[in-house]
Amino acid sequence: MNRRMILYTLGKLMQIEAILLVVPLAVGGIYGENVLSFVITALSAAGIGTLFVLISPPRTRVIYAKEGFIIVALAWLFLSALGALPFYLSREIPNYVDAFFETVSGFTTTGASILPDPSSLSHGTAFWRSFTHWIGGMGIIVLCMAMIPSLSARSIHIMRAEMPGPIVGKLVPRARDTAKILYLIYVAMTIVQIIMLCVGGMNLFDSAVYSFGTAGTGGFAVSADSCGSFTPYIQNTITVFMFLFGVNFNLYYLLIFKRGRSILKSEELWAYFGIAAASITIIAVNIYPTYKSASDSLRLSAFQVGSIMSTTGYSTADFNLWPGLSKAVLLLLMFFGACAGSTAGGLKISRVVLLIKMIRCNLRKLIHPRYVGTVQLEGKTVNEETQRSVANYFALYAFILGSIFLLLSFEPFGIETNLSAAISCFNNVGPGFGFVGPASSYADYSAFSKLVLSFAMLLGRLEIYPVLFLIAPSTWSRK
Amino acid sequence: MNRRMILYTLGKLMQIEAILLVVPLAVGGIYGENVLSFVITALSAAGIGTLFVLISPPRTRVIYAKEGFIIVALAWLFLSALGALPFYLSREIPNYVDAFFETVSGFTTTGASILPDPSSLSHGTAFWRSFTHWIGGMGIIVLCMAMIPSLSARSIHIMRAEMPGPIVGKLVPRARDTAKILYLIYVAMTIVQIIMLCVGGMNLFDSAVYSFGTAGTGGFAVSADSCGSFTPYIQNTITVFMFLFGVNFNLYYLLIFKRGRSILKSEELWAYFGIAAASITIIAVNIYPTYKSASDSLRLSAFQVGSIMSTTGYSTADFNLWPGLSKAVLLLLMFFGACAGSTAGGLKISRVVLLIKMIRCNLRKLIHPRYVGTVQLEGKTVNEETQRSVANYFALYAFILGSIFLLLSFEPFGIETNLSAAISCFNNVGPGFGFVGPASSYADYSAFSKLVLSFAMLLGRLEIYPVLFLIAPSTWSRK
Repeated sequence: MNRRMILYTLGKLMQIEAILLVVPLAVGGIYGENVLSFVITALSAAGIGTLFVLISPPRTRVIYAKEGFIIVALAWLFLSALGALPFYLSREIPNYVDAFFETVSGFTTTGASILPDPSSLSHGTAFWRSFTHWIGGMGIIVLCMAMIPSLSARSIHIMRAEMPGPIVGKLVPRARDTAKILYLIYVAMTIVQIIMLCVGGMNLFDSAVYSFGTAGTGGFAVSADSCGSFTPYIQNTITVFMFLFGVNFNLYYLLIFKRGRSILKSEELWAYFGIAAASITIIAVNIYPTYKSASDSLRLSAFQVGSIMSTTGYSTADFNLWPGLSKAVLLLLMFFGACAGSTAGGLKISRVVLLIKMIRCNLRKLIHPRYVGTVQLEGKTVNEETQRSVANYFALYAFILGSIFLLLSFEPFGIETNLSAAISCFNNVGPGFGFVGPASSYADYSAFSKLVLSFAMLLGRLEIYPVLFLIAPSTWSRK
Repeated sequence: MNRRMILYTLGKLMQIEAILLVVPLAVGGIYGENVLSFVITALSAAGIGTLFVLISPPRTRVIYAKEGFIIVALAWLFLSALGALPFYLSREIPNYVDAFFETVSGFTTTGASILPDPSSLSHGTAFWRSFTHWIGGMGIIVLCMAMIPSLSARSIHIMRAEMPGPIVGKLVPRARDTAKILYLIYVAMTIVQIIMLCVGGMNLFDSAVYSFGTAGTGGFAVSADSCGSFTPYIQNTITVFMFLFGVNFNLYYLLIFKRGRSILKSEELWAYFGIAAASITIIAVNIYPTYKSASDSLRLSAFQVGSIMSTTGYSTADFNLWPGLSKAVLLLLMFFGACAGSTAGGLKISRVVLLIKMIRCNLRKLIHPRYVGTVQLEGKTVNEETQRSVANYFALYAFILGSIFLLLSFEPFGIETNLSAAISCFNNVGPGFGFVGPASSYADYSAFSKLVLSFAMLLGRLEIYPVLFLIAPSTWSRK
């Protein structure tokens, strides 16, 4: 294993984190706040990063899947461990495990919070908290780029082992250019959202913070009621952008550089908006007796469906109090997530569509032994290996979800709370039901459970494999 | 499609049901009860059955997978619809949907009940209710025989389409002989359990009823507290038999006719008892503070683990009140079920073991692109097709569970109750958590939800495919 390259890359990433920390530092400075915690953290990140880079100059830059997995997992872990320092050092989150949970939740774009009322945070810290979502979203785009060698929207299968690891420097030139364009799209969309929120009367700080949370599909809010007190215009704007950030970014690339019509052929996109439309309708009808207004019901329903499908996790109402059917729909949507190649978590719509097609093909084969139909997605035949890996991923996903739930069950909160916490964190959504509903927080969980949930967020965000390889003993054996 | 053969076979099965109804009729007679409902039902079953046989003499007895699936699904449906009549006609269950739910629950060996206190039933009706478990268990053995052409314990994959359907008359002679032997084992084990319960001081009626519930891994009790008031001897006896009826019946065949040592090589058996031992230990430790007695904790834990893993569903304590960890373990065990080729429901241990091995193999392939390891079970290589069908089955299983949960969510009982009801009925366990815990019943569910759950029990019991084909429009199109 190329350990030098692993350390070297981690060092580089910590140096980047040090630079990124200057932004919240500046924000805190503008508001005249004490920014010592950011200074210390930035210097620590720069120092440790440079140390790693210096002591570990790689003999070769060639890395393979194994190292790629390890770097990805360690990067999210190290950056979170360092990124938690501003919360901890400023005593705004006095417990380090809590601060770590909050930062993992930020970088993984989950949005689960241990803060019952985030409005008490200083501007610098609140900005950093939401900024981690935006950085995390960027990281996921790099990862998607590295995972998807061709720009085909069909390539939703997990990293192919023969491919060099997900390091920007190792991307082939063309892919690197594409990554830059995807970044530009990401930045441009964020800026448009900030402007549109400002136009609606929101101040610049809040606009930026909520746009970061939307772009990264994170969901950290800076008020205790998330987006509940906003005007309908603001809520609807956020709804639209939550859906937009749940779309495969490669489609935006195609929209700009190729014929725009080709994106209409995307099966995943149709399925995404089809599921969304059906869910919005069901919930709007279901909650209508509560709100007694068609427009309110529709707005609240659309916002929540957008929030859960894109795995953002904002809320405009305490959906914990909604009728059982609405809650069940939201719970199931947590599994689906949004499109592959977006910043959203969850299984991803294309995986769900592919699984359904595989099941249908299998049913036909059962009846007609000589049936030779193939499974097609986005107009192309999905080969057996991809099918196998998607089916195996799903089984692994289910086993891990069961394990997370089991580890959480030491908590006295009951099945609804613990199970929804596991599902929500593993799928990078944020809020759950019961005691972890949108009107409450993860504050009451034990330190052990918070670490379990942090681990769940990392597993979900990195699509399981990197984290598994990180903790597998065989990875670290010398043989 | 060979519609004549389908009707003919259904007719034959109804004739058999008419004969079987004579048993509860006789029991009711012995206790001097009104047995008119049984007389009417038996005559109806005999009449309709004979009508079917007469109007539909098959031109050919050759049937294929499609017809096999349809016959299996219709058989469970028709026999349940008829079998519900004694409850309904005697007004002991005055609502027909309730009676149908109870009978489906019986024949599918689930044990979910709408009766808050089954001790109020007459002897004849109570006997019939438990007898359906025993008949259902027999039916499953036939089905397993037909599904597993070779006696290999490895063959857990679903019906192969090129194989004639699961009709006893169509089994090859050798398999038919084997089926007889398996029946003999089933009957002998039931008799041994009845004797052992009588020895413990239980009266013959209760011994028979509880043994039927154990043998079919059903779980209908005739007292409101299930097995809670029994002596430790009785409880432990039932525990042992619940585990024994969860073992693959082919292993008993091997034990008797081949070298007994070969069963020690069964991976599924080791996994079954390994998971059981681990679960019993965790729960016993977890509930020790509640019961303050090591032997009580161990007995209650072993009973409940045996009951849930074998998907019987008896209880000796209200596990709904146990700590979260114990409840989580039990909830996860509901998915596992017991061994393939037993009367138990659930995913089956061998499927779970195979899925884990497939995941492990896939992980190795990710790291080592040229890794050529194969997946082995019971010492034999599992081919790609079987792997694919198991992985697809699992995905289908998850989607259907989600759908059942969604359909139940019109009920006001919350996620814990509705989800556990869906899991418990789909896996043919019986009790769930919350409002459907072991101390309560399914009485409060609406008629719609009771039909959904009846459907869930059939889907689980018949391993999904037959029921899906029954309701698929393409099955009934004339093209």
